[in-house]
Amino acid sequence: MKLKMMYSFLNNDLQIIENELEATIQTERALLQEASLHLLQAGGKRIRPVFVLLAAKLGAYDIHKVKNVAVALELMHMASLVHDDVIDDAELRRGKSTIKAKWDNRIAMYTGDYIFARSLEMMTKVEDIEAHRILSNTLVELCKGEIEQIRDKYNYDQNLRTYLRRIKRKTAILIAVSCQLGAITSGVPASVHQSLYWFGYYVGMSFQITDDILDFTSTEEQLGKPAGSDLLQGNITLPVLYAMESPALNEKIRTIHEHSNSAEIKEIIELIKRSDAIDRSFALSDRYLERAFKELEKLPNGLAKRTFNNVAKYIGKRKY
Amino acid sequence: MKLKMMYSFLNNDLQIIENELEATIQTERALLQEASLHLLQAGGKRIRPVFVLLAAKLGAYDIHKVKNVAVALELMHMASLVHDDVIDDAELRRGKSTIKAKWDNRIAMYTGDYIFARSLEMMTKVEDIEAHRILSNTLVELCKGEIEQIRDKYNYDQNLRTYLRRIKRKTAILIAVSCQLGAITSGVPASVHQSLYWFGYYVGMSFQITDDILDFTSTEEQLGKPAGSDLLQGNITLPVLYAMESPALNEKIRTIHEHSNSAEIKEIIELIKRSDAIDRSFALSDRYLERAFKELEKLPNGLAKRTFNNVAKYIGKRKY
Repeated sequence: MKLKMMYSFLNNDLQIIENELEATIQTERALLQEASLHLLQAGGKRIRPVFVLLAAKLGAYDIHKVKNVAVALELMHMASLVHDDVIDDAELRRGKSTIKAKWDNRIAMYTGDYIFARSLEMMTKVEDIEAHRILSNTLVELCKGEIEQIRDKYNYDQNLRTYLRRIKRKTAILIAVSCQLGAITSGVPASVHQSLYWFGYYVGMSFQITDDILDFTSTEEQLGKPAGSDLLQGNITLPVLYAMESPALNEKIRTIHEHSNSAEIKEIIELIKRSDAIDRSFALSDRYLERAFKELEKLPNGLAKRTFNNVAKYIGKRKY
Repeated sequence: MKLKMMYSFLNNDLQIIENELEATIQTERALLQEASLHLLQAGGKRIRPVFVLLAAKLGAYDIHKVKNVAVALELMHMASLVHDDVIDDAELRRGKSTIKAKWDNRIAMYTGDYIFARSLEMMTKVEDIEAHRILSNTLVELCKGEIEQIRDKYNYDQNLRTYLRRIKRKTAILIAVSCQLGAITSGVPASVHQSLYWFGYYVGMSFQITDDILDFTSTEEQLGKPAGSDLLQGNITLPVLYAMESPALNEKIRTIHEHSNSAEIKEIIELIKRSDAIDRSFALSDRYLERAFKELEKLPNGLAKRTFNNVAKYIGKRKY
């Protein structure tokens, strides 16, 4: 089953969010508008809004209350992508030029700042004070993740823990908080929204590990950007760390630096793909998924729970 | 009297804040550390921490509680300066190269993001939930101010209201909130911290208007950057708006665009200086100061109030 089919009952509400996203980034400043719209129209899975809505379905669901959180979190995610592409010097995302490639780093910086500001503005409409505290913490983690990503580039002495902490900050927490805030906004009891947080967290970890595997195993066409981009940009992900446990590969991988030529790197990427690193990475992703399912068991039965279950399964098994 | 002499009784505590600022930006990432330290050591008046501490003196003052707010707000201010310099393409600030000039836009972007993250992290140490809500709103306003500054560059159809709203967002609110959060952290009653907010707000407006005047009337040596930088960067400030009320000057000013040569702009700057725009700008700054003093009257007498009074007077009359 296709991902979007799993939650087709949310289609009307997801369309409201899509419209709201577009309305929120409206500005008279032509360039800013064009850059923001470019980003918005490049699409994406909108996983965060989907999780917000599903979590909200466990409580007193009101799309007009919950949409603010969904839009705010998706905008925050988008803003972080724009700055990430500057950091990674990335040319392509989802098959489209990045803002920094189409315009320049300066415009990418302030488009990111702008979308971030719109996100915060959207959040001020949310009245729950706990939601604000959760959001501040999420922002801190997101920014720390960004900084750690810069710090850890081409750093071959990082370990599994460094990697896991980084993807926790860059990805898992925002997905966890999507579940949690969706629930809080709908008045779901604390015990339930805690489980939702952990469900989102584990799914997020699995999601990012899968992303990092697919960067090796998928084609440019499937990825919408060159295969092996992570290593080409100096980002050391899980498959690389596992591969480095073999002394021969370790030695080879350590030769990669900022000015390596891409043919050399591509050769190493092939070696990593043929090692056991990919299977081991899938196994770790699966362990996170199992923990996610355990959290899910604690939730009340119903359509939301079943859909979470299907989406989580899909995320763990997806091929691109 | 020199500004620093007015609050010499805060010297020990300001030194604690200075140390804390330096400790907070510590990172193993050499470049990030160097860029952040470069910014920190360029100095600045540290007006926001001073206001935080003075406001806290009206309540149960505890430097170890209040320092978190002071450091967080100063870091937020610093982060916004780094991104501003990218937007303005500014080469110099406080007599030193800007980060974007010394390194590049990319490094300035993530140094700004990094300092901002550290600021948020510092804030999470503050337990008062009201403080978090105030801070989110401040962030929104700060980001909106940044975006409006981009939008309003070379826009000659903006009016006084556009300008005032922009400097409110870019400057006044952060100073207002410095006073308010300093007070809240020390358990000052709401009626007092509301007055402090408005005091800081009016002082902030006067401060920024004075800054915008000095950009015309001071020398490069006094400013630590070329005189007339604002207009050279396309930023339309109060003196320009007042000068544009004269039809002859209006016509001349409107000819300035992104690719004007700087000799032409400097000629126009001379004309603005010789018009009544400077005096009228000072008059508006004074009106804001008067409102600040009125708010101050509502505060309990004592050293903090006297010092606020002296600092506010200084800010309104300073020549650089």
